[in-house]
Amino acid sequence: MSTQKNQNQNQSNSSHPKTAITPTRSQDYAEWYQQVIAAADLAENSPVRGCMVIKPWGYGIWELLQKDLDKRIKDTGHVNAYFPLLIPVSFLEKEAAHVDGFAKECAVVTHHRLEANAEGKLVPAGELEEPYVIRPTSETIIGAMYSKWVQSYRDLPILINQWANVMRWEMRTRLFLRTSEFLWQEGHTAHATQKEAQEETEKMLNVYADFVSEALALEVIKGEKPVWERFPGAVSTYSIEAMMQDRKGLQAGTSHFLGQNFSRASNIQFLSKESQLEFAWTTSWGVTTRLIGALVMVHSDDDGLVLPPRVAPSQIIILPIYRNDEERQTVLAYCEKVEKALRAQSYSGEAIRVFRDDRELRGGEKSWQWIKKGAPVRLEIGPRDVAANQVFMARRDKDHKDKVSLSYEDCVKQVPEIFTEMQSELLNKSKKFMKEHTRVIQDLAEFEKFFTPENLDNPEIHGGFAEAFALDIPEIENFLKPLKLTARCIPLTSSHETGTCIFTGKTGARKMIFAKAY
Amino acid sequence: MSTQKNQNQNQSNSSHPKTAITPTRSQDYAEWYQQVIAAADLAENSPVRGCMVIKPWGYGIWELLQKDLDKRIKDTGHVNAYFPLLIPVSFLEKEAAHVDGFAKECAVVTHHRLEANAEGKLVPAGELEEPYVIRPTSETIIGAMYSKWVQSYRDLPILINQWANVMRWEMRTRLFLRTSEFLWQEGHTAHATQKEAQEETEKMLNVYADFVSEALALEVIKGEKPVWERFPGAVSTYSIEAMMQDRKGLQAGTSHFLGQNFSRASNIQFLSKESQLEFAWTTSWGVTTRLIGALVMVHSDDDGLVLPPRVAPSQIIILPIYRNDEERQTVLAYCEKVEKALRAQSYSGEAIRVFRDDRELRGGEKSWQWIKKGAPVRLEIGPRDVAANQVFMARRDKDHKDKVSLSYEDCVKQVPEIFTEMQSELLNKSKKFMKEHTRVIQDLAEFEKFFTPENLDNPEIHGGFAEAFALDIPEIENFLKPLKLTARCIPLTSSHETGTCIFTGKTGARKMIFAKAY
Repeated sequence: MSTQKNQNQNQSNSSHPKTAITPTRSQDYAEWYQQVIAAADLAENSPVRGCMVIKPWGYGIWELLQKDLDKRIKDTGHVNAYFPLLIPVSFLEKEAAHVDGFAKECAVVTHHRLEANAEGKLVPAGELEEPYVIRPTSETIIGAMYSKWVQSYRDLPILINQWANVMRWEMRTRLFLRTSEFLWQEGHTAHATQKEAQEETEKMLNVYADFVSEALALEVIKGEKPVWERFPGAVSTYSIEAMMQDRKGLQAGTSHFLGQNFSRASNIQFLSKESQLEFAWTTSWGVTTRLIGALVMVHSDDDGLVLPPRVAPSQIIILPIYRNDEERQTVLAYCEKVEKALRAQSYSGEAIRVFRDDRELRGGEKSWQWIKKGAPVRLEIGPRDVAANQVFMARRDKDHKDKVSLSYEDCVKQVPEIFTEMQSELLNKSKKFMKEHTRVIQDLAEFEKFFTPENLDNPEIHGGFAEAFALDIPEIENFLKPLKLTARCIPLTSSHETGTCIFTGKTGARKMIFAKAY
Repeated sequence: MSTQKNQNQNQSNSSHPKTAITPTRSQDYAEWYQQVIAAADLAENSPVRGCMVIKPWGYGIWELLQKDLDKRIKDTGHVNAYFPLLIPVSFLEKEAAHVDGFAKECAVVTHHRLEANAEGKLVPAGELEEPYVIRPTSETIIGAMYSKWVQSYRDLPILINQWANVMRWEMRTRLFLRTSEFLWQEGHTAHATQKEAQEETEKMLNVYADFVSEALALEVIKGEKPVWERFPGAVSTYSIEAMMQDRKGLQAGTSHFLGQNFSRASNIQFLSKESQLEFAWTTSWGVTTRLIGALVMVHSDDDGLVLPPRVAPSQIIILPIYRNDEERQTVLAYCEKVEKALRAQSYSGEAIRVFRDDRELRGGEKSWQWIKKGAPVRLEIGPRDVAANQVFMARRDKDHKDKVSLSYEDCVKQVPEIFTEMQSELLNKSKKFMKEHTRVIQDLAEFEKFFTPENLDNPEIHGGFAEAFALDIPEIENFLKPLKLTARCIPLTSSHETGTCIFTGKTGARKMIFAKAY
């Protein structure tokens, strides 16, 4: 049960350090990230190598992302379906670049039962004639089905999406950002013409960019990957690229134009209007639970997670404060009234998500738990608030001591506006940050200086996204690897510009974004 | 483009046979089932042994089931989370009965990459120190996490659900009813007391019964499984049992009271209020994509699938009918108006789902496709309907020729009522069918006669659910196996009755339901 002397200072006697998260971002960004995830109770490592457990608060975020994106995917004419988890090894082999890209990190199923051996230990038994891999991605198994479904141009386009788990055996993992198993959606479409498939690829890139910007409040750059960063088997790969607070880049979604590579591999052929047998043109596109990692890395602070209201599993936390049973009764009754009124309000087309935290814990402890979890708004309600028909409101985007008293009516009325404001301010902050840490670079010396660690103490001018001309040839990667840098993309906004390559001095180079990356 | 001579007879020149599905239910029920699934385009077999592809219309049904059940699971205080796909073999071994139950049907992951051998063929490489199985169910991996999360009685209860894919290597598979990979939800809860865990087990059984009855319009019997039908490792297993049109039983959901078996195996211990170290009491419960099989088997007819409106991905199909471009324009404009008005209506708390089928196909062909897919209502709209501001309505629960003209206003107004009526009539039909084919049996001779195939030509009195007394001991299964029969459950409504066992003649027997089963 909570106790309080002065309701307006019920946090002040907290024994918390200045920041709830140790270390802070500036002390150790990588460790800060892990600590925010732990403090917000989003996920943790499991006893299964490289696989994480997504805990209820983290999974709640994923459910909101899913719901929002699923609607966008359906609104653009797609339907969901489900394909097998396992892929015969022979299917993977059909596309040469594809198998090269995935063979090194596949979980392989070789047996179909367990049997006790002589020592009574369970060992694999029932060896399979052909092993399967757990899908690292589903182009080949879905392609096999499409080859059956597609006979005529009338069967096209096929516009299917799948929400699924996939597995890529990673050696070095990090919660959400890189795990052996992860959750994602993968769209797989087949079209009668190259033009249609290319339009689909770009359409979905735009859907992703709008989604992360509107729902996750993340600024991204839309671009095409240079040749050496393409999806294995793709003709071209597009991506959205975000910037984390340590100014590293993170690929937040990809859309691939697969040309006829996979339709040839899977034999997806159709009779055209002109009665010609042709290979279909296919695309694939996906985003993953990695987006939650981006969300954490972009918005959070040294007190923990900061959630944009649209993806907060609980948007408002009601914290009842009382000293005895009598107060308890009055306060809880009032809290229920506030809760009910808030739930009747809507934000972004959905009823507002309210959680009343009745646990018998100290008020300060409870409050700090919700700060660390990133709940957008907290309402502390004690006997004086009940008497005055008001609430005491704290916002996650303000200092934790910066709270305001609001009348009941104002609170109920203003909450949707406050959410709109928080959501747009988070996006603006993300935009501003990317702009501030993106620099147009003219030559190699400047390029190297921009990324030199000792200069990183001046974040205004060093580190981040470097925009420079480079040839779109695989050899460029050789210049980048020693610097531990990557080319993120050729931004769509400057895809028609050419210039002189800062690495080779040759003309005909494309404008690319370079960065250290996750 | 559709043509029509007489709008009121636009189906009459169809070349379809009397029934859209061959064979009919009475000719060959098992084959009829497969043909309904094919005709409704719900799912098909994949190149992966025992695994199916759930096609968009089938997956759309699953999404509606998920949405409805997910809400019920959350409304009863549970939250969703996600646990790893893979389970270390040593985890499975911790609970003796559990491993006995699942070892024989596990997909085993033994390697983590593929490598080309001397002949250039890809073979498994990177052998794992300890193999993993793909989860057949997640008690053991979730238990391992709970043992970390639970320290004190304050950490209890844990009320978590997971939506996931699981794999049990089945030798004989059948779409939806029995597949190696299937989709499901699995709830896993941990409690401080036996009573709480038992209450949870029963609560979720009731949630399932309400769900299948209200959403799927399936009548079920709630009961406890006899000892030999328990989930491997459970103290008691409860299930809901449905009756298919061939009068076989189908287990539609299970809820298990696991006692302290799994908390001992996974070491889920907590310090009680009295500062005693105790093992938690756990439960688990699940329903699967098998429910779609039940839906097909209970409601469908010889023209294909029949969907209760609540789980129909499209509830109303608008079929524009026209002969030329001029008519096309007028008809489509009117159809859009109808569509918009219907979408603004709601049924069961959701906007009505309307699909306007503009494909350039013969009207009769289109109409039959939607009959076979089980869409609850079809609206045929031609130029005369436009002129008269009306629609021509066909219902899936009536004969396909039995259509009525309705004014635009009446159609829009009546559709929610029609859905309510269809939904409740389907449930009533299911109830009536089960009642008609359930028989109280007094002795073994009568029991055997009830299940003798040559007597099945009189469905009023032979075959179905036999209600009889039997001892709740494993030996009873020996009497059932030669008859190819199973005990479905001890109905909760008669769980306190005892009588004389029809198999052994001994007293103290329980009232059980027996049936042939899927």
